[in-house]
Amino acid sequence: METIHPAAADSTLGTADLSELIHQQDSEGALSLIDRIAPRDVIHVVSRLSREDRTALFSMLEAKDAATILQQLPEPQITHALRTMPPVAAARILEQFPSDDQADFISTLDHRHYTAIMAHLDESDADDVRRLMSYPDDTAGGLMITEYLAFPEAATVAEVVENLGANAELYADYNIQYAYVTNEDDQLVGVLRMRDLLLSRRQNALRDVMIPNPASVRDTDTLEQLVAFFDDNRFFGVPVVHANGVLCGVVERSAVDAAIAEDQDRIYRNAQGIVGGEELRTMPLLLRSRRRLSWLSVNILLNIMAASVIALHQDTLEAVIALAVFLPIISDMSGCSGNQAVAVSMRELTLGVVRPTEVVRTVLKEISVGIINGLALGVLIGLVAFLWKSNFYLGLVVGGALMLNTIIAVSIGGAVPLLLKRMKVDPALAAGPILTTITDMCGFFIVLTLASAMLSRLT
Amino acid sequence: METIHPAAADSTLGTADLSELIHQQDSEGALSLIDRIAPRDVIHVVSRLSREDRTALFSMLEAKDAATILQQLPEPQITHALRTMPPVAAARILEQFPSDDQADFISTLDHRHYTAIMAHLDESDADDVRRLMSYPDDTAGGLMITEYLAFPEAATVAEVVENLGANAELYADYNIQYAYVTNEDDQLVGVLRMRDLLLSRRQNALRDVMIPNPASVRDTDTLEQLVAFFDDNRFFGVPVVHANGVLCGVVERSAVDAAIAEDQDRIYRNAQGIVGGEELRTMPLLLRSRRRLSWLSVNILLNIMAASVIALHQDTLEAVIALAVFLPIISDMSGCSGNQAVAVSMRELTLGVVRPTEVVRTVLKEISVGIINGLALGVLIGLVAFLWKSNFYLGLVVGGALMLNTIIAVSIGGAVPLLLKRMKVDPALAAGPILTTITDMCGFFIVLTLASAMLSRLT
Repeated sequence: METIHPAAADSTLGTADLSELIHQQDSEGALSLIDRIAPRDVIHVVSRLSREDRTALFSMLEAKDAATILQQLPEPQITHALRTMPPVAAARILEQFPSDDQADFISTLDHRHYTAIMAHLDESDADDVRRLMSYPDDTAGGLMITEYLAFPEAATVAEVVENLGANAELYADYNIQYAYVTNEDDQLVGVLRMRDLLLSRRQNALRDVMIPNPASVRDTDTLEQLVAFFDDNRFFGVPVVHANGVLCGVVERSAVDAAIAEDQDRIYRNAQGIVGGEELRTMPLLLRSRRRLSWLSVNILLNIMAASVIALHQDTLEAVIALAVFLPIISDMSGCSGNQAVAVSMRELTLGVVRPTEVVRTVLKEISVGIINGLALGVLIGLVAFLWKSNFYLGLVVGGALMLNTIIAVSIGGAVPLLLKRMKVDPALAAGPILTTITDMCGFFIVLTLASAMLSRLT
Repeated sequence: METIHPAAADSTLGTADLSELIHQQDSEGALSLIDRIAPRDVIHVVSRLSREDRTALFSMLEAKDAATILQQLPEPQITHALRTMPPVAAARILEQFPSDDQADFISTLDHRHYTAIMAHLDESDADDVRRLMSYPDDTAGGLMITEYLAFPEAATVAEVVENLGANAELYADYNIQYAYVTNEDDQLVGVLRMRDLLLSRRQNALRDVMIPNPASVRDTDTLEQLVAFFDDNRFFGVPVVHANGVLCGVVERSAVDAAIAEDQDRIYRNAQGIVGGEELRTMPLLLRSRRRLSWLSVNILLNIMAASVIALHQDTLEAVIALAVFLPIISDMSGCSGNQAVAVSMRELTLGVVRPTEVVRTVLKEISVGIINGLALGVLIGLVAFLWKSNFYLGLVVGGALMLNTIIAVSIGGAVPLLLKRMKVDPALAAGPILTTITDMCGFFIVLTLASAMLSRLT
C-alpha cells in the first residue's frame, strides 16, 4: 500500500524512457520507472507506447505487476496486448484478474487465441470463464465474480475462523465482509457477517449465527433489475443463485455501477457517431477511419434522400433564392430540438420512469414543449427573414415552417427511442440518424410547399 | 431482506391506487402497496405521482421508509420533495441518507429551505453537512462519507470487539470491512481488517494488529486522481485525510463509480442540448421549455451567423440552383464527422490518455482520418452531383468542398474539447455548437467560392 503523493512523483519520466528500457529487456528498470510515475500519469505514459512495445512490456513483467498496470488501460489496449503476447504469458496475467473481467476479455478473442489462452489457464479459472461466458454481459451471471466465501451450514464458527486464518493469502483480494452459507445441496441458505463471527461463541454452528433467507438475485436477472436491487438495498454485493437456488457467484455493487457507466458512455459515443466500440487515437489509422466511415456512409445516403426533397422544388427555390439561406437553418434547428427530446427519452428509459409502450404520453408531453419552443424560434427566424428582405410573407413561410417542424421534431424525437426499444433495436445507435432524416425531409417539404403556395407574394 | 421475485409482484398496482391511498392519508396502506410492487416498478409508479402527492407521501411515511423509497428516485424529484415537505420531515428523512448524499441534496437548496432544514437536523449530521459542503462535488472531500469506524492505536482488540457488539445497531449501515486507527492527534496511522481482529489475541493493542502506513487520499484530490487510485488498488474504500494527516472521511469505490456515471450522463445530455440539469417529463412544462430554449436560442443565432455566408454568395447560388440541394448535406455531414472527433477527444480526456495541451498531436491524428474519410465522402457526393446534372464540374465543386470541409471538421472537432478544457470551459457544453458553427461557415464558404471560380463551367 502506498499513499498518493502526486507532487513527489517524477513528471519528467515519459513514454520514451519506458520504451528504451523495454528495448533493453530491462524488466526491473521498467517496473521501477512505472513506480516512480505519478499514478494518474501511468495510463498516459503506458498507453502511448507503440502496440509492440506495450505487448513486450507486459510479456516481460511478472504476471502480478503486469495485471495491475494492464487493468488501468483502456479496454481496447488490454484486449490487444492479451492477443499479441505469448498465450502462456496472457494466461498468467489473466489469472490475476477477477473472474468477471477474465470472462469479459477472453470472450472478445477470436477462436485461435481463445483456445491457446484457455489451454494455459489454471483449470479452475478456465472452468469459471467457460461458465461466466455463457451469460450475456449485462446480466447477473455476466457481472458476477466467483471469488467469494461459502461455508456449509453445519460448520462451526471455530472452523470458519481457522479456515480464514489458513487461507489468508488466498483470500487477500476477496471482499469478505460477508461469507455465504449453503446447505448440503449447495443452495444458499444464509449470509454470515464477519462481525457476527467476532461476537459469537466458537462452538456455534453457522446455521445459528447466520442471517437466514438472505437477499439474492437470479443469474439471469438483467442490469436494470440489479440497479433496482442496489437502489433498494445498501449492500456492497449480492449472492447470485441458479433457478434451483444453488449459489453460483456474487455481484458487487461496483460491477453494476461500472456496467452503467459503460452503458452511458456507449450511448454518448453512438449519439456522436462512434460505433463498433471505443476509439482511441493510438489505434491503427485504417481501423479508425473505416469504423467512422461505416456510420458516415449510412448518414450521407440518408442526407441525400432528405435533400432530394429540395431538388423536387427547385423551381420555387430558384424563384425565391433567399429560401436557400434558411434551408440549412431549418434542418439544423429541427435536428437540435429533436435531439433534446431523444436525450430525455434515453434518460427516462435508463431511469425506468418511462416504459417503451408509453409512446402516446411521451408525444403529448413533447407537443406542448414543441409548441412553445417552435413559436419562439419561429418568430425569431421569421423576424430575421422579414427584416432582411422586407417581405412579410417570407417571414411567415420561414417562421411557420420552423415552428411546425419543431413540433414534429420533438414528437418524433421523444417517440423514436421508445419505438426502437420495443423493436429491440439499440436506440442509442439508430435514433439520431432516423430522427434527422425525417425532420430534414419534413422541414424541407413544409418550407418549400408553403413557399410554392405563396409564390406570388414572395417574388 | 427479500429475494427479488418480479413474477410474484403485482403488476396491476399503479400510480392511481397509490394516489388514492395518499389522499386518504393511509400511510400504512401506501407502504404496503409499495411493498407489493416489483422493485423495478417502484420508480415508475412513484415518479408518476403528481409532485404534490409525492411530497404528501414522503411526509406521511416513517422517515426510514421514506428515505429508502426516495433514494431510488431521479435526483430532481428527490430535491423537489425535500423542498416542499415540512422542514422537520425533510430533516428526519435526510438523517437516514449517507453523509455525502445529505450534503449533495442540502447544497442544492435555496437559503430559506437550507436554514429551515439545517435547524431540524441532528447536530452531528448538521456539522458533517457543513463540513462536506465546503468541498467541491468532484473531490475526495465532496465524495467521502463520515460513517466509518476509527479507534485509537492504544485500544485493545477486546475493546474494539466490545464496541462493535455494543453499537451493532448503529453500525448496521456502515461498510465495516475495515476500521481505521488513529494516533492521539487524530492522524491516520493504520488500517484494521476485521478478519485480523478475528485472528488476534484479545489483549493485543491495535498498533500491533493494524497494517501501518495505509493508503490514503487527500480531501482535495480530484475525481481523476481517485479513479487512478481505485484503478491501481482493488480496495472498496480509501480513508481521506487533511493536509495535516488527520482522518476526516472515507471515499467508497462505489461513490467514485457513481460520480463517473453521472459525469458521463452529463456529457451525453449536454451534447444533445439538454443543459442546466437533468430533465424529466414530470417536470413543469415551462421549466422544461425554458431550459431547452436557452440552448436552442444560442444555437439559432450561431446558425444564422453561419447561414449568412450563403447570403453573401446569393448570385452564385441563383446561377447554379442545384448547389442549394447540397448545402444542407455539406453542413450536416461535416457536423457529423466533426462530432465523431469530439467524442473521441472527450473520451480520451476522461480516460487520461490525452492531455489538454496535446492539441498538435490530436490534430495530426485527425487530419489523416479526415483525408481518407473526406476522400470517400467527397467522391460519393461528387458522383451523385455529376450523375444528377451530368456536369463534371458540379461534382468537382461539391465533392471537393465536402472533402476539404471534412478535414477541417475533424481537426477542429478533435482540438476544440482540448482547447476548451485548457480555458476551463466545459467541453461537453460548448464543443458541439462551436464546432458546427465553424464547420458550417467553412463548408458554405468553400463550396460557394469554388462555384464562383468555376461559374462558367457550371452554368
